[in-house]
Formats: sequence, C-alpha cells, structure tokens
Amino acid sequence: MSEERKIPKPRESSASRSRLRVVRDHEDESASLVSPQHEVHLGHLDLELGGSLQNVTLAYRSWGQLNERGDNAVIVLHALTGDSAAGGPGGWWEPLIGPGRPLDTDHAFVICSNILGGCQGSTGPASQDQLTGRQFGMRFPLVTIGDMVNAQRLLVERLGITRVVAVGGSIGGFQALEWATRHADMVSGVVPVAATGALDAQGIAINEIGRRAIMADPDWRGGAYAAEGVFPASGMAIARMAGMVTYHSKESMDLRFGRNLATRPVLYPSFGPTFDVEGYLHYHGDSLVKRFDANSYLYLTRAMDLYDVARTGGEDLWLGKIDAPVQLVGIRSDWLFPPEAIRALGERLLALGKNVTYTELDSPHGHDAFLKEWDQMTDAIGGFVSDRVARPS
Amino acid sequence: MSEERKIPKPRESSASRSRLRVVRDHEDESASLVSPQHEVHLGHLDLELGGSLQNVTLAYRSWGQLNERGDNAVIVLHALTGDSAAGGPGGWWEPLIGPGRPLDTDHAFVICSNILGGCQGSTGPASQDQLTGRQFGMRFPLVTIGDMVNAQRLLVERLGITRVVAVGGSIGGFQALEWATRHADMVSGVVPVAATGALDAQGIAINEIGRRAIMADPDWRGGAYAAEGVFPASGMAIARMAGMVTYHSKESMDLRFGRNLATRPVLYPSFGPTFDVEGYLHYHGDSLVKRFDANSYLYLTRAMDLYDVARTGGEDLWLGKIDAPVQLVGIRSDWLFPPEAIRALGERLLALGKNVTYTELDSPHGHDAFLKEWDQMTDAIGGFVSDRVARPS
Repeated sequence: MSEERKIPKPRESSASRSRLRVVRDHEDESASLVSPQHEVHLGHLDLELGGSLQNVTLAYRSWGQLNERGDNAVIVLHALTGDSAAGGPGGWWEPLIGPGRPLDTDHAFVICSNILGGCQGSTGPASQDQLTGRQFGMRFPLVTIGDMVNAQRLLVERLGITRVVAVGGSIGGFQALEWATRHADMVSGVVPVAATGALDAQGIAINEIGRRAIMADPDWRGGAYAAEGVFPASGMAIARMAGMVTYHSKESMDLRFGRNLATRPVLYPSFGPTFDVEGYLHYHGDSLVKRFDANSYLYLTRAMDLYDVARTGGEDLWLGKIDAPVQLVGIRSDWLFPPEAIRALGERLLALGKNVTYTELDSPHGHDAFLKEWDQMTDAIGGFVSDRVARPS
Repeated sequence: MSEERKIPKPRESSASRSRLRVVRDHEDESASLVSPQHEVHLGHLDLELGGSLQNVTLAYRSWGQLNERGDNAVIVLHALTGDSAAGGPGGWWEPLIGPGRPLDTDHAFVICSNILGGCQGSTGPASQDQLTGRQFGMRFPLVTIGDMVNAQRLLVERLGITRVVAVGGSIGGFQALEWATRHADMVSGVVPVAATGALDAQGIAINEIGRRAIMADPDWRGGAYAAEGVFPASGMAIARMAGMVTYHSKESMDLRFGRNLATRPVLYPSFGPTFDVEGYLHYHGDSLVKRFDANSYLYLTRAMDLYDVARTGGEDLWLGKIDAPVQLVGIRSDWLFPPEAIRALGERLLALGKNVTYTELDSPHGHDAFLKEWDQMTDAIGGFVSDRVARPS
C-alpha cells in the first residue's frame, strides 16, 4: 500500500510548534504545571478473565481544567513501566502537555492514571490483600488491558468526565484501542502510538525471557519476596535489559553505542573489557529495580501478551465499533511494533469505512521514539487532538 | 548499492541439486558417512589477548579422503553451540556434506573441529586445569576467534593439510573471515555465511543478557559449579531463550507460532495460558542445558562480541590481505547479521579489488536459515566450493 495515497497525512501544525517553543522558554509556566498525585477509591471491579478485585484504587495526575460539560478531557495512557507523571517538570511527555503544547491545557483537561496492576499508587500485586493483610504477590488476579481501561472508565466518570480523547504509546496504544472499541460511547478521538491490535510472537518471547529471569531469581520466593524482606533485583534487571533491546532499534544502538568500550567499571574484570552497550543495559536494569515492583512487571507483561483487540468476536466486529476519528502513529525504526503492521491496521480501518490518519515518525530511535521525537510527535498528534477536544463551555 | 550489478551472482548449480536428491534417497550411503570423533593433542598455544594454554586438544570429525598434496580440504566452521558433527547421519549440515553434495566428499576432504573454548572434546573451561586438577571454570583464559583459528591451523597442519576452503555460518563465518585474513597463505576459498566482520551493539546486548542470566544463577558459583556438583540450568536456559530470539526472524516466528496457545503444560497455571512461542523457548532453553557447558557459553559469546576482522590495523589492511575468492551469503530475514551489512562487506571487498560473490537466501527463517534452506544453500555454495577444491592427486 501507499499510505500517502490512501491515508491522508495530518495537517501541518507549525503554529503549535512555535507556541511550544515559546512556552518551553518560560520556566515559571512549567512550574505551574506541577500536579500532585490523587488516589481515588473505586470499589469493586469484575475482571475480564474471571474473579474480581474488591477495593480498586487508581492514582492519577491532571493538568488543565475540566469544563462544565466534562467533554474536554484527554486521557494519556502510559507504557509498561510508566506512571501518571506524564506532564509537568520532568514528566515523560512534558513537552507535549501544557499551555500551547500539543495536549493544550489552555483548552483540554489532561489526565493520566497509573494502570491497574502497576505499582505507583494504583492497585496491583504490591497492594495489600485485605484477606491476608499482606501484599497480594502472585495471589493477585490476572488483569488485562480491558480491566485497566474499565478501571479508567470508573475513574473518569467519578471525575465528571463525559467525553475523552484517548492517547498513548506502546501498551498505552493498546489501551487507546481498547477505549475506542469497547467504550466508543465516550471517545471523541483516539491516538494509538507505536502499537497494533496485538503483540506478535517475538514480543511475547522477549516478555517471557524477562518473566523467567524474575521467577528464576531465588529472591523472587514465588512472588512473596516482600514478606521475606528480599527483592529479585537480579532477575528484574535482566528482564529490563531484555526489554530495553526491544525499545531500541539496531540503528539507534549503532548510532549511540556501536562497538565502543565503556568507561564504567566492569562486572568481571577477568572477562575482558565491557562494551558501552553493556554498561547502558546494566544501568537501566539496575535503575528499574529501584523504582518498580517485580510482580507488577510479571503481570503487566502478561497483560501485554494477552491483549488482542480482536478477542471475542473478531477484528472487524470490534474495529467496526469505533466511532471516533483515529490517528495512528508508527515509527520507521520500531522493531517491537513495526510500521508495516501499523499501516496494515490503518488499511483495515479504512476498509471498514473509518476516519483514520497514519503518520510515521522518521526516527532512528526505535520503539521509544515517541518518548524522544518532540517536534515530530507535536506534528503527528497536536492538530488531531486539539480539533477533537471540545472548547471550554 | 545494487548487488545484481556490482557483485555477480553465483552460477546455477541445478546439477548438484539433483545429485543431492538422489543421494538423500539412499540411506546406505548416508550410513557410510558416519565419522568417529578424533582428539588431537596440539600442545602449547599463545593467546591473542595474553597468556597461553599448555595442553590444547582439538576434537574433530572428517569425511572423504585427503589427497597426497593435502590440498583438497574443506574446513567447516561451526556456530556458537555447534559441534564437529557437521556431516553424516543427523549432522547439522548433513545434506551439504557427502558424495555428490555441495561439499562433495568424492573430491574433498571435509573436516570440522570443535572450537577452542567449547565443550565437546576440544579444550575449554570444562577441561581439567593441570595446575589444580579441577575444571578451569573462570580460570580459563579469555580466548578469541583468532585463537580458535590458530588452534585449527595447528590441527590441519598436523593432519598434513596444505590448502583449505573455509566455510562457516554465524561465528563460523567469523572464523572463515579470520582464516582468509590471517592465514591467507593456506586458503583457496572462503565462504562466510550469515556473518559480517564484527557483531553490532544489539548482538552484544543479547549476548550480555544471556551471560548475566548465567552469572546470576545461584548455581553458577562463580563458574565453579562442577566442583560443587550443581549446574546453572535456569540461567543457561534463559541465555538460550534470548539467543533463540535472534536466530529467528519476526516473520518466521509469526509463521510458526503467531499468537497460538501451547498444548504443553504451563509453568504457572495461575498465570494464564502459555503461548506456543513460550513453550518453544522453554524447550530449547532446557535442551541446551542437557548438552552444553555454561562457562563455555560465557566464553564463546564473549569471543563473538570481541571479534573484529579490522582489529589491529584496520579493515582495509586486513581485508586487503585476502588472496582467495570470497563467497558471501546473506539471508533476507536475518536480524542478527542483516543482509545489508553483508552486502556492505561485499562492496568493501570489491572496492579493494577482491574476487567476491554475494548470494542472498530468500528465506523467512532468519539467521538460522543456513541450517534449514538446503536447496538454496546448495546453490549458494556448491559450485563455489567444488571449483576451489583441488581434484584428488
């Protein structure tokens, strides 16, 4: 296919780009974007694969003001080990969220919650199981992307939101598709970035390597490490290292590391020099250990594997339910969700008569480019989102 | 570049293909190809990165007869966890080695030795250190692809071989390049398959994930597991799983596994169904544990990382030393050594005035296609090798 011909390109948004630059020069405005994290107790949630959770809490942050009709919300959906700190100083999408930025808080109410099963304030395996008074650990039920979005819907309704534009990358893109297909009544626009409708075999394989590394760590203790005062740091670091390989591209790794030798101290001095790329992986492996729960990593990667937009009824049935315009974003060098697969999803949506646009980021940075290519991301999603967010009432 | 224009395609060899089919129908002829493994004690070997080994042994198998001039030898160079059993019934290149086959034992003396640092009869970390009476373990010195080939040269000279055609895939391809550049005086043809002159950052990254998994296994014991009667099976299996992902392509994994669920029993029943690809990885992880030494895996992957045909002098100097015709073979879907990188090596050789041919296997099977695509491999290397093997004297 030729995406130029069949899927129209989004309009140029040089206006929002120049506004972005101005805003980023004003540190005071950035400071006003600091958002505290709120926790909302949502009660009971029935789960897609059976069972239920009794006391679901979601933690969220927000930027901008919800209008009276509650129809100017943008829900930002984070990736695997992300969190609610999307906007504001140091936020993982800081350049995209704020006054005059692509997710423009002069008009939109932008919200981001930690996903169900995570470990940064929302209910997950590290939460207390009220039956035992201890962490759930592996007694936590298997949760799906569908459950995560069901919990998000409870949250946004509690906050008085009536319409959302759903925007997210990687498994945030899965969640965006889930919003668009299972909650079409609330969605006025959807932006799945670097995501298709399901992970492929190679992605599942990498996730399983990570899970097996965590479970093989003697400090995992069948998931009960917290009660025993230990943590499977080594397994978790290996899992992260495997993940990091999929977030980069061959091209970005060659550009950034090549075969350069590291200046960092080596792990086994007798075993020869360390390459830069090894030092980088060790650093990222160890740093995830400090901020993320190992059981959450198991549950979230499993939810990622299990997600399939076509489940229970088939692809055409579910894609057919989409009402809102769709902005797909692919990345030239993405190895985890290759652009061809995202274009194929775009073709499928077109064939079903949907309003769909596809934009490809021309980046060497692989899957993670949606966390790095600010100008291209601005062009790809800024105009689309602002066109779909209702103006303040 | 256009390889059709600049690098001539190898000639069609439909004749050898039809001969191959006939031979494979005759089980008796196959049985006559059984070769026992011989061990040759080669004595002292100085090592490239310093130090030496005192009592180097290489184990090898051979097929066909060496002629009196010793100039009809083909040395087959195995990949990471391969062994000397290249030909004969069940050999990993069985369809390529034998009478009338691409490595034609009616004319050639085909030899394959286990690499230095391995664990199938040649000296490696599991060999006895005569200083201590125990396995070397991590006291084994760091060996390089250069050392492996130096040991091979000692072996072939001991056997009276004067000229070789060097043929191998993956790190066998590294060895072939090492023969061609550092032992040009003995080489009459070289066939590096699915290999370039050095591993890239992504390949190093995957190797390091495997090493870290082995070293993190509490049963690794700093490499001294044998003395303590244990084995780092879990770490080794994870290392193999990571390797397997690089030997496949996204395409081959989608074709073979897709998102199908496994019929094998699941590891954690409470953790949902198992995908086919996970069962496959578990199987291959566990099966390498039964046949391979964990410390060898560490040393061989390190040798793979460290290999660089351009080391000490630069690419042009070393590639410039090649005297023999070169047949490069790439694989369309190879992710570990992408065909573009192999074509670039071909262009470099052409620019240096070398006699080089490039053939690309049109296969979805990724890096491992050189162990699967028998007809295409026959076409790619059969004519080249038989043209370069001297006829029996």
